[in-house]
Amino acid sequence: MVERVKTGIPGFDEILNGGIPKRNVVLLSGGPGTGKTIMASQFLWNGLQMGEPGVYVALEEHPVQVRVNMKQFGWDVKQYEQQGVFAVVDAFTGGIGEAAKREKYVVKDPTDVGELVDVLRTALKDVNAMRVVIDSVSTLYLTKPSVARSVIMSLKKVLSGTGTTSILVSQVSVTERGFGGPGVEHAADGIVRLDLDEVDGELIRSVIVWKMRGTSHSLKRHPFEITDKGIVIYPDKVVKTRGVVG
Amino acid sequence: MVERVKTGIPGFDEILNGGIPKRNVVLLSGGPGTGKTIMASQFLWNGLQMGEPGVYVALEEHPVQVRVNMKQFGWDVKQYEQQGVFAVVDAFTGGIGEAAKREKYVVKDPTDVGELVDVLRTALKDVNAMRVVIDSVSTLYLTKPSVARSVIMSLKKVLSGTGTTSILVSQVSVTERGFGGPGVEHAADGIVRLDLDEVDGELIRSVIVWKMRGTSHSLKRHPFEITDKGIVIYPDKVVKTRGVVG
Amino acid sequence: MVERVKTGIPGFDEILNGGIPKRNVVLLSGGPGTGKTIMASQFLWNGLQMGEPGVYVALEEHPVQVRVNMKQFGWDVKQYEQQGVFAVVDAFTGGIGEAAKREKYVVKDPTDVGELVDVLRTALKDVNAMRVVIDSVSTLYLTKPSVARSVIMSLKKVLSGTGTTSILVSQVSVTERGFGGPGVEHAADGIVRLDLDEVDGELIRSVIVWKMRGTSHSLKRHPFEITDKGIVIYPDKVVKTRGVVG
Amino acid sequence: MVERVKTGIPGFDEILNGGIPKRNVVLLSGGPGTGKTIMASQFLWNGLQMGEPGVYVALEEHPVQVRVNMKQFGWDVKQYEQQGVFAVVDAFTGGIGEAAKREKYVVKDPTDVGELVDVLRTALKDVNAMRVVIDSVSTLYLTKPSVARSVIMSLKKVLSGTGTTSILVSQVSVTERGFGGPGVEHAADGIVRLDLDEVDGELIRSVIVWKMRGTSHSLKRHPFEITDKGIVIYPDKVVKTRGVVG
Amino acid sequence: MVERVKTGIPGFDEILNGGIPKRNVVLLSGGPGTGKTIMASQFLWNGLQMGEPGVYVALEEHPVQVRVNMKQFGWDVKQYEQQGVFAVVDAFTGGIGEAAKREKYVVKDPTDVGELVDVLRTALKDVNAMRVVIDSVSTLYLTKPSVARSVIMSLKKVLSGTGTTSILVSQVSVTERGFGGPGVEHAADGIVRLDLDEVDGELIRSVIVWKMRGTSHSLKRHPFEITDKGIVIYPDKVVKTRGVVG
Amino acid sequence: MVERVKTGIPGFDEILNGGIPKRNVVLLSGGPGTGKTIMASQFLWNGLQMGEPGVYVALEEHPVQVRVNMKQFGWDVKQYEQQGVFAVVDAFTGGIGEAAKREKYVVKDPTDVGELVDVLRTALKDVNAMRVVIDSVSTLYLTKPSVARSVIMSLKKVLSGTGTTSILVSQVSVTERGFGGPGVEHAADGIVRLDLDEVDGELIRSVIVWKMRGTSHSLKRHPFEITDKGIVIYPDKVVKTRGVVG
Repeated sequence: MVERVKTGIPGFDEILNGGIPKRNVVLLSGGPGTGKTIMASQFLWNGLQMGEPGVYVALEEHPVQVRVNMKQFGWDVKQYEQQGVFAVVDAFTGGIGEAAKREKYVVKDPTDVGELVDVLRTALKDVNAMRVVIDSVSTLYLTKPSVARSVIMSLKKVLSGTGTTSILVSQVSVTERGFGGPGVEHAADGIVRLDLDEVDGELIRSVIVWKMRGTSHSLKRHPFEITDKGIVIYPDKVVKTRGVVG
Repeated sequence: MVERVKTGIPGFDEILNGGIPKRNVVLLSGGPGTGKTIMASQFLWNGLQMGEPGVYVALEEHPVQVRVNMKQFGWDVKQYEQQGVFAVVDAFTGGIGEAAKREKYVVKDPTDVGELVDVLRTALKDVNAMRVVIDSVSTLYLTKPSVARSVIMSLKKVLSGTGTTSILVSQVSVTERGFGGPGVEHAADGIVRLDLDEVDGELIRSVIVWKMRGTSHSLKRHPFEITDKGIVIYPDKVVKTRGVVG
Repeated sequence: MVERVKTGIPGFDEILNGGIPKRNVVLLSGGPGTGKTIMASQFLWNGLQMGEPGVYVALEEHPVQVRVNMKQFGWDVKQYEQQGVFAVVDAFTGGIGEAAKREKYVVKDPTDVGELVDVLRTALKDVNAMRVVIDSVSTLYLTKPSVARSVIMSLKKVLSGTGTTSILVSQVSVTERGFGGPGVEHAADGIVRLDLDEVDGELIRSVIVWKMRGTSHSLKRHPFEITDKGIVIYPDKVVKTRGVVG
Repeated sequence: MVERVKTGIPGFDEILNGGIPKRNVVLLSGGPGTGKTIMASQFLWNGLQMGEPGVYVALEEHPVQVRVNMKQFGWDVKQYEQQGVFAVVDAFTGGIGEAAKREKYVVKDPTDVGELVDVLRTALKDVNAMRVVIDSVSTLYLTKPSVARSVIMSLKKVLSGTGTTSILVSQVSVTERGFGGPGVEHAADGIVRLDLDEVDGELIRSVIVWKMRGTSHSLKRHPFEITDKGIVIYPDKVVKTRGVVG
Repeated sequence: MVERVKTGIPGFDEILNGGIPKRNVVLLSGGPGTGKTIMASQFLWNGLQMGEPGVYVALEEHPVQVRVNMKQFGWDVKQYEQQGVFAVVDAFTGGIGEAAKREKYVVKDPTDVGELVDVLRTALKDVNAMRVVIDSVSTLYLTKPSVARSVIMSLKKVLSGTGTTSILVSQVSVTERGFGGPGVEHAADGIVRLDLDEVDGELIRSVIVWKMRGTSHSLKRHPFEITDKGIVIYPDKVVKTRGVVG
Repeated sequence: MVERVKTGIPGFDEILNGGIPKRNVVLLSGGPGTGKTIMASQFLWNGLQMGEPGVYVALEEHPVQVRVNMKQFGWDVKQYEQQGVFAVVDAFTGGIGEAAKREKYVVKDPTDVGELVDVLRTALKDVNAMRVVIDSVSTLYLTKPSVARSVIMSLKKVLSGTGTTSILVSQVSVTERGFGGPGVEHAADGIVRLDLDEVDGELIRSVIVWKMRGTSHSLKRHPFEITDKGIVIYPDKVVKTRGVVG
């Protein structure tokens, strides 16, 4: 029987029939404002509560802001960082600025995937990581879509080599169908898409698991909400308003 | 509890559940004629009435015209400029022309984002700015879409470093869905979109808050009007005529 | 109260709530056969009848043909040219040909926007112009869309500097939505679109004012006709057949 | 009152309110199999019957084939060529081949618009042409769409200079809306489009006059047939099945 | 009266009102799996039965496979090759391989259209060909769409010079409307399109004659089947499910 | 009568009227998560059960992972590798890593199609292969679509030369219609498409055989499921929800 990682996100483990199969590299794809960062952070925080160390690779925000954003949901990671079971990899500041100097894991040149992989590998080992979030992988190939697949492949080799279960945040434009391009979509072990759609003048949030290697899963689109305690998915409800392919 | 900046725009604070969370960088996106400049100016003017200094970065219009445009709505900023609590950064004239010589904050080469950032930083400090408008950021990458994200990131670092709350005006074509491209959309803390749509031979104005970090907000599309006193949003009404994703 | 320029075109001043606000640079956008040149010429001719001098910049037709075209509607500009209150700027012939030698304002190299601006400035001053038509601005960036915005900006600086009210004719393909691209649309003070649409096997003409700085205006799409006396707009009727955004 | 050229094509002069205004350069646009060459040839043949000399510029077919094609409809141009009132300009063979050696007007390098214009000018003068067909202008810019407008402009200068009324055949793909691109559409004095559309499993032929300078015209889409005597248009019938703008 | 070539394909001559007019160059266009190669082979085979020699230019398959494919429908061309009334031009192997060495007509460099034309000319002369199939012409410009028209023109000159009636197979993507691009569509004397469309979960085959110089023809879309004896078209039935223009 | 290869996949041989005709090169096309790899692996495994040796070319996954993935469905290939009737060609690792050193068939440079063909040829000969899977061919031209056809042609020559029946996995984006581009689609002997479509908030799996040389086949879209024993197709049911052409 397949070993699983519990996300602890209300409703999410249910639609995954028990959690994410261990070692899977999951693409978490969605447009702006859909809640990708919140879901990814919640996945890490819940891991810490279950005794599973984690690493957050920050490519879009200052590491300080990452911690502030998590704290807004009551997820204060400071103690876990001190215990050495949680780490933020700073791939944002380039090591520039006072705050950046206090960071332990810094990628000097965030456009250098090789360096990113090296720093990530160190962080994974130091905290003995079981969960990883990279937010976002899209940044790594935003201006060079032709390298997207090889970037994903490089990350996948590190991540699968160390036995972690990981979420790669994939940013798509609000007008973009799909999950980030063929090279990326086919390389991932799992694909989860978050959507924010306007229906009759109202924005509706929904999540669909498009693919998850190693397990069956709900094939339905479920509504979810962003509460002040994080994301809550409703596994018993279905949203019929959109098709990802259209 | 999150600290907020009141926009003072009738109806807008209601749909934001109290105002824009402080320090947020908000993308104000819309096609031609949708009222972006009016809403952004109104945000600054209302700030001045509440004792909050502001800076307007003019990339599309002559600074003189910016003041004339505001005055048409009864917003005469002259006294505030004299008091040193309001500034217009001239990133339009390149310092050429008689009128330009009377401007205090001039970006000689508006295509040089580095210089823009430097002048902006000075202006922010001089007036002790709490609110900023950049009208428009699109101009900065109109002919070079690949640098859009890095331009936004540069601005975001200055703005968040100084603690201001800012509105970045994003021009999209009348035929363009989305808010200005993935690099821009994902970098912003908030996204507000203004629309002008033809329905049965009549133009309809509406606003929708797509994303706003740090607060819940109305998930509905609301109608608004441009009156001779500025924008008025109707938080109790919903417009059902369009989806941003189409 | 805003100063206005009467177009004198039946129905047009009504839907503009009194005319075009003075000094506005208006984009007159439409596909082939929609009547842009007729409307623009009518604007100039009516100005001459009200004692307001004008300049027509001919980029698409031989200056001789421009005068012939106007005469077909009974608008004989010869006397006004002799009185020095009307001028045609020849940006078509390049000064080549017998007829061209009789023209007073000739742009030798119509691809040189700088020269165009210089000749235009001279003509504006000579006739003391209050109205200007440039037919069409699209020609100036047809093969170089990336310079569209800077061309419009250059023209706008000359035109607003001299206090004229101007119409820039913008040619769009019959299949093209929008008004000529984001750089152009956002730079204009006003946008008027003429449409020719096939509905149930019949061509329908309509006009819509999408944007007009400094005044409220009809937000409806109105039918119009091309008669042998020029354009006649029906402000009391609405055409429901198309949305510009589509 | 405007001088007109009778096309002599059954139904066509009716929907043009009497014929094509003299000197107009008309774009005859349509997909493959729509009957453009037949209509253009018929225009020339009918001219010959009314004593109006004509020139056919062959860019798509061997001059011999052009004559054969016309003969299939009973239009034998041989005698008119011998009388010196009709000419075929061979811009197809490049002067290569036995048959080509018997041609009087040969464009050696059909990609050289300058040479084409020179040969055309000679032919126009020799036969004292009142009607011209260029079949097709699309060939002249098929691989260089950016020069389309300047090619049309060059032709227009020759044609209008000699006082002829002309039809420029414009080939569009079966999937292409519009008439051949903005540069071409706006340069023409008239636009006539022929369509072949599949409706419920059956092909329907229709014609619409989109634009015709100097005259009012039918604003309806009319059905037509290709008979063994050429094209017959039904001015009293309307086809409601398609909109050119879609 | 026009001379015709009988295709002998059940139903096809009926919808062509007697067959393909002699010397016509017909584009046979369709997506993958639509039956283009079968129809083209059947045209050649039926010619052989009527005493009309033919040539098959193989650009997509090994000549051996071409013969095998035909044999599957009972069309064994061996005897005809031995009699010198049928030939396969090998423009596939480049002359490499044992089997290729047994081929009589080999194009060494299939990307060299000049060589292809030379070999084709020889084969046409040797067998005294009255029918030709080129399968497919698309291969000749797959990576260089800009040369498509000139390739078609080169072939057309050879084919029409020798008096053959020919079918040029044109491959289009399953998602592609049209027949292979404007340069190709307008150069052909005839256009026949085969379609395979999914309707309510079932694939439907249909054929439509879009254009055929020198004859009137059915303007309807007819269903057809691929049987073990080749293609059978149903001239009395109509398929209403798709429009080629969409 | 055509010789066939039984796929052994429940329902698949039925819709193929008995199996895949021997020596056919079949394109198995689908978006992410549609089950392509599972179906291709099942085809090989079932072959082993019937005594038909096979080769799996791994371009997307580590050879070790390929075996693990198959084992999840109960398909343990180890014994067959030891017996020398099954081989995995490692075109993934480039020979780097401990595990890779234990692989027998390694393509050092997976971007070198020539080397891939050589290694493949050796493996085919060693195991006396009757079935081959290449997963995926898309990887070979992901960044160079213009070489797609020549890559497919190279593979086809090797595969058809050795008499194997093969499945080429073709990855398409979730938003992509068609099967991988015209050059690929037309080169394949068969095309099978797997789809995953959202209908009213639920994901539906379906398979359609678009083309299969040498046999008639179901022309319907059939539903299928991915069970813990592999794919099960329902030949008696039809899915009406999508058209591949759209």
